[in-house]
Amino acid sequence: MDISGARDARERLVVIGGDAAGMSAASQARRMRGPDELEIVAFERGHFSSFSACGIPYWVGGDVPERDRLIARTPEEHRARGIDLRMRTEVTEIDVAAGRVRARDVDSGAESWVPYDKLVIATGARPVRPDMPGIDAPGVHGVQTLDDGEALLDSLTRAPEGRRAVVVGAGYIGVEMAEALIKRGYEVTVVNRGAEPMSTLDADMGRLVREAMEGLGITMVGGTEVTKVLTGEDGRVRAVATEDAEYPADVVVLGIGVRPQTALARAAGLPLGAHGGLLTDRAMRVRGHENIWAGGDCVEVLDLVSGQERYVPLGTHANKHGQIIGTNAGGGYATFPGVVGTAVSKVCDLEIARTGLREKDARRVGLQFETVTIESTSRAGYYPGASPMTVKMLAERRTGRLLGVQIVGREGAAKRVDIAAVALTAGLTVEQVTALDLGYAPPFSPVWDPVLVAARKAAAKVRDGAR
Amino acid sequence: MDISGARDARERLVVIGGDAAGMSAASQARRMRGPDELEIVAFERGHFSSFSACGIPYWVGGDVPERDRLIARTPEEHRARGIDLRMRTEVTEIDVAAGRVRARDVDSGAESWVPYDKLVIATGARPVRPDMPGIDAPGVHGVQTLDDGEALLDSLTRAPEGRRAVVVGAGYIGVEMAEALIKRGYEVTVVNRGAEPMSTLDADMGRLVREAMEGLGITMVGGTEVTKVLTGEDGRVRAVATEDAEYPADVVVLGIGVRPQTALARAAGLPLGAHGGLLTDRAMRVRGHENIWAGGDCVEVLDLVSGQERYVPLGTHANKHGQIIGTNAGGGYATFPGVVGTAVSKVCDLEIARTGLREKDARRVGLQFETVTIESTSRAGYYPGASPMTVKMLAERRTGRLLGVQIVGREGAAKRVDIAAVALTAGLTVEQVTALDLGYAPPFSPVWDPVLVAARKAAAKVRDGAR
Repeated sequence: MDISGARDARERLVVIGGDAAGMSAASQARRMRGPDELEIVAFERGHFSSFSACGIPYWVGGDVPERDRLIARTPEEHRARGIDLRMRTEVTEIDVAAGRVRARDVDSGAESWVPYDKLVIATGARPVRPDMPGIDAPGVHGVQTLDDGEALLDSLTRAPEGRRAVVVGAGYIGVEMAEALIKRGYEVTVVNRGAEPMSTLDADMGRLVREAMEGLGITMVGGTEVTKVLTGEDGRVRAVATEDAEYPADVVVLGIGVRPQTALARAAGLPLGAHGGLLTDRAMRVRGHENIWAGGDCVEVLDLVSGQERYVPLGTHANKHGQIIGTNAGGGYATFPGVVGTAVSKVCDLEIARTGLREKDARRVGLQFETVTIESTSRAGYYPGASPMTVKMLAERRTGRLLGVQIVGREGAAKRVDIAAVALTAGLTVEQVTALDLGYAPPFSPVWDPVLVAARKAAAKVRDGAR
Repeated sequence: MDISGARDARERLVVIGGDAAGMSAASQARRMRGPDELEIVAFERGHFSSFSACGIPYWVGGDVPERDRLIARTPEEHRARGIDLRMRTEVTEIDVAAGRVRARDVDSGAESWVPYDKLVIATGARPVRPDMPGIDAPGVHGVQTLDDGEALLDSLTRAPEGRRAVVVGAGYIGVEMAEALIKRGYEVTVVNRGAEPMSTLDADMGRLVREAMEGLGITMVGGTEVTKVLTGEDGRVRAVATEDAEYPADVVVLGIGVRPQTALARAAGLPLGAHGGLLTDRAMRVRGHENIWAGGDCVEVLDLVSGQERYVPLGTHANKHGQIIGTNAGGGYATFPGVVGTAVSKVCDLEIARTGLREKDARRVGLQFETVTIESTSRAGYYPGASPMTVKMLAERRTGRLLGVQIVGREGAAKRVDIAAVALTAGLTVEQVTALDLGYAPPFSPVWDPVLVAARKAAAKVRDGAR
């Protein structure tokens, strides 16, 4: 089918990006309107559609036995639902004035202009790959795509005798990859710019993560930056170097984070925010453009707690965005109110969670706050398996409004943050949180849930501060 | 010390009942005001103070190794904090007009009048003990107090060869005791008046519990009532009988539920509600009485979803009530806004949770609703240990307001109900719930949390219903 030439009477929706946001949008638009009303063309430059990037660490670590388990829907499945998904096809230009995109076949290099009536930009994120000597050496791996995962697994499988791995970065990807490599039998060193891992937490909570990771036998090197990758005579990585030291490495994994992939959008003159992501309205329309939507890892989102945009690349948001965009592009109505910044992760049996603002986030937006940290347990203290849990809570001065929660613990710690996520969304004060009717039974919680314990202490501090 | 005679200059706070609500109130009042300002006298008719009744099934089942683990604070500890706690002392009368209570030493029978300036009624609940032949036979046990637990354990330990147990009632206590008895190696039969166990759930969700319990080898007999307890020649229980059948039993556990223990309050002319519990205001004061508070299992609470009082005897509420009463009785200010009816439980690895209104609750208060039930998993489908979870959700017609959630599943199911509990408290619509920023990572949740999946379906149904 030649889609570059004459148009039929149907509206055409063009989707750039065949992963969570793009294909959720396409699928939902298809649910809203049939193929006789709406033509849907989607372009994906990679080999895979609709895969779970968040699952890659667990595939590498061996928890997930095979790559294809991470693929939610194959290109064939999308096509069977009436979505003209073009794999290995890159969009190289958006011509907003003319309402068309230029698509290039990655393998053949052939290009053509494809007109659209409605456009969805879901170009995702690209991993930060520092420009340093040796960064492209064999044995240095990102973990953003299934191809990346394949290459890393290949590297691990046919690696020399050496079982030393260095992970660069100690955010979510970094700590999850540290777990994966431990499970693969590697000696793992994590080199991190911040003094403590998990900079999405305050440093006092990050310290708990570091201590637990050290307890797992992981070497944690904080407060320093990798300056180059050293290679051996075979050209493969043999170590990474910081200002002060060298860390031998048979394999290096980059987990430094990602940036919105918005070069296309920038070139097209579309509005970008302070974090480099596209700016949308509540209906996920690109601001100032009636017929262009954007979602997933290439957009900024409204933080409901701070009232400002932030960048939160996460599969769960991408899916929601896609759902909302598809509804709107399909002629319905739906909005994305914003986020509160919830994220959960784990390293082996250590669970890590956060939602809302950290201390520095609050300061940056002019909020003054009280902060409390409490120790409690996941279950009634007398019930077997009760494990310690640390909860940090921030509450605004005077108003007592809940601003943020961070939790580090074992089984049952991470998803407790959802209590705070809903409370933040609803704008509850910590005093109101103390009265929440949460599930209680000895196998599931102490009689005061740890979140309530933190809220009681925070509420008292707000009252004291008001004097 | 003779407290019945002349008064000193201090105010006197009298507390009736030495368990969660009463002793929390006493402790908090003591934190607010020192012994030189406020005298605190508490009466407890039993042998134990501040114990976890909710923990008894786990002690009987062997998860909790010894009784004293269930005691949060002993009488001596309370006394060390300046609370004059009188054990084995029953209050037999409240004289509201004169501001005094009559206390009776349970062992000696000696009585005296004790004046109060402020009174806290925390008389708790009494288990329903049906009046039928044989109910008092050896081998028939309630499980409300530590003494009850001791007697049951004694019965289990020195039982004859027989290992057959019948549990009467299939509410929280019933199903938890079924688990305990299974763990003790008993053949367990649960006889229940309702067609399905867990009448705190709708029957369609209760069915899932029944099926799981049957899968554990428990014999579930629903839709029938025990009419008598049959005894052997030794006078001990040997079976229970219903209209139609007999069930052999070496031990019988009663888990039929509890009623508020309010005979004292009723005799004193204090206001009781439709469920027989004391009626209080938001500050937990008995309505119409400036200086009398009540909390815990002897009061009714406002249901924030229905707008009507209900009876929810639960340790977590009792503790909150105590905290609030103690603050107010100590001269501070705190309120209990009400409950949404959250409860969680488990039978072996089956987790059961509910919050808000069941179908019949909604109908009773005139709310019309849509209902949806979905199947999802506790973790990303590809992540090891992902277990199925059923979520039922009720949403009000037209407004789309969330009305209730019920969850049955395995690991990770129960505490997910907290998401709904907070959303109910905040009055969110199911459409708003679909956008909640909940913690997502493959080990903890599918990309759409099961609660969000249910909310999406409920929101669609509300929209369809609005047409």
